[in-house]
Amino acid sequence: MITVTDQDIKKEKILDAAHQRFLHFGYSKTTMNEIAGDLSLSKALLYYYFPDKSQLYVAVMRKVANEYLNILKSKANTFNGLKEVFEFQINTQHDFLVNNYNFFDFFRLNEQNLPDMIWEIVDHVRQSEIDLLVDAINVEAGKGKLKAVNNPGEIVSLLLDALQGVRVSSSSNRKVMFHNKEDLDEIRAKRLLLTDIFIKGLIN
Amino acid sequence: MITVTDQDIKKEKILDAAHQRFLHFGYSKTTMNEIAGDLSLSKALLYYYFPDKSQLYVAVMRKVANEYLNILKSKANTFNGLKEVFEFQINTQHDFLVNNYNFFDFFRLNEQNLPDMIWEIVDHVRQSEIDLLVDAINVEAGKGKLKAVNNPGEIVSLLLDALQGVRVSSSSNRKVMFHNKEDLDEIRAKRLLLTDIFIKGLIN
Repeated sequence: MITVTDQDIKKEKILDAAHQRFLHFGYSKTTMNEIAGDLSLSKALLYYYFPDKSQLYVAVMRKVANEYLNILKSKANTFNGLKEVFEFQINTQHDFLVNNYNFFDFFRLNEQNLPDMIWEIVDHVRQSEIDLLVDAINVEAGKGKLKAVNNPGEIVSLLLDALQGVRVSSSSNRKVMFHNKEDLDEIRAKRLLLTDIFIKGLIN
Repeated sequence: MITVTDQDIKKEKILDAAHQRFLHFGYSKTTMNEIAGDLSLSKALLYYYFPDKSQLYVAVMRKVANEYLNILKSKANTFNGLKEVFEFQINTQHDFLVNNYNFFDFFRLNEQNLPDMIWEIVDHVRQSEIDLLVDAINVEAGKGKLKAVNNPGEIVSLLLDALQGVRVSSSSNRKVMFHNKEDLDEIRAKRLLLTDIFIKGLIN
């Protein structure tokens, strides 16, 4: 008889194996068969845990998103000034996207038609980022280092949205949710510059 | 015999009539027949000037874009400070989008698949906006009112891209090129706030 705990361990192993497959071969080139094979699992048992590849992907996405948020949260309250906080957020996100580049081919393939469960994760990540950055603004405002900010959540959302607008010079005006890998360094540099100017505009 | 000048006048009349149709009924609900009817023109003659509706639309778009740029340029060098320039740009664009809202249903319908000729117009408008704003930065920098800006073009592009990232609070993380009409006021307010903070970050 399988206990709940055994099931949880099994699930974690499946998520890890699937993550590796998605990471190295992308979503479209990964099959449920291969993931089952990696774990010497019967296909039937894999499908018992995850009814199809997209649901397995969403579960991996949730796990990966939590790992990203844990990195962000691990450094909360250790920063020296707002600039450090925002730079850490931008750099952590950059590293996360570079390290998981192939994993996100699902986003690139389905940009116009992502399932709601993916949007829920995206929204959750964004809200957690906002919470972290709002805390940082409140700390700095408490020290009297900022101009009066009536609504820190609004200010943080505004900057995060603005950062999403940053594009590479060579791109057309077409909007993309996920940038090409070779563009990520330019995007990061521009985001850091935008953040630098924006924060100077907030400081007393 | 039709001279070139007569042809130009005829073309202008067609563009005006088409603009009115697109403005009031949108692209999809306008037919070439109706435009010909508005001008008491034979369908054959209309097609002689514009081989199909999409090419007529692009020509109207080019005309409308030039009118927008003329408004922007008419006030160049009359501003008192950078904030006034950027606010004028944001407000003029806002009014332009509100006044031409139905006209842009073509963009909303074809967001993922706009013809290259449309992108050329969009790129031209953007470049003209950049030129105008770069001039303004250079004027202010010449007065010693700005922090050293090595590359004004880069700074202006960065802010324009950032302004494109602004979204309404209620929206999901999905990106849109054209906002709903009821969201345009919120978008404008956020763009003005972003610009205000950004410019403060540039000022000495």
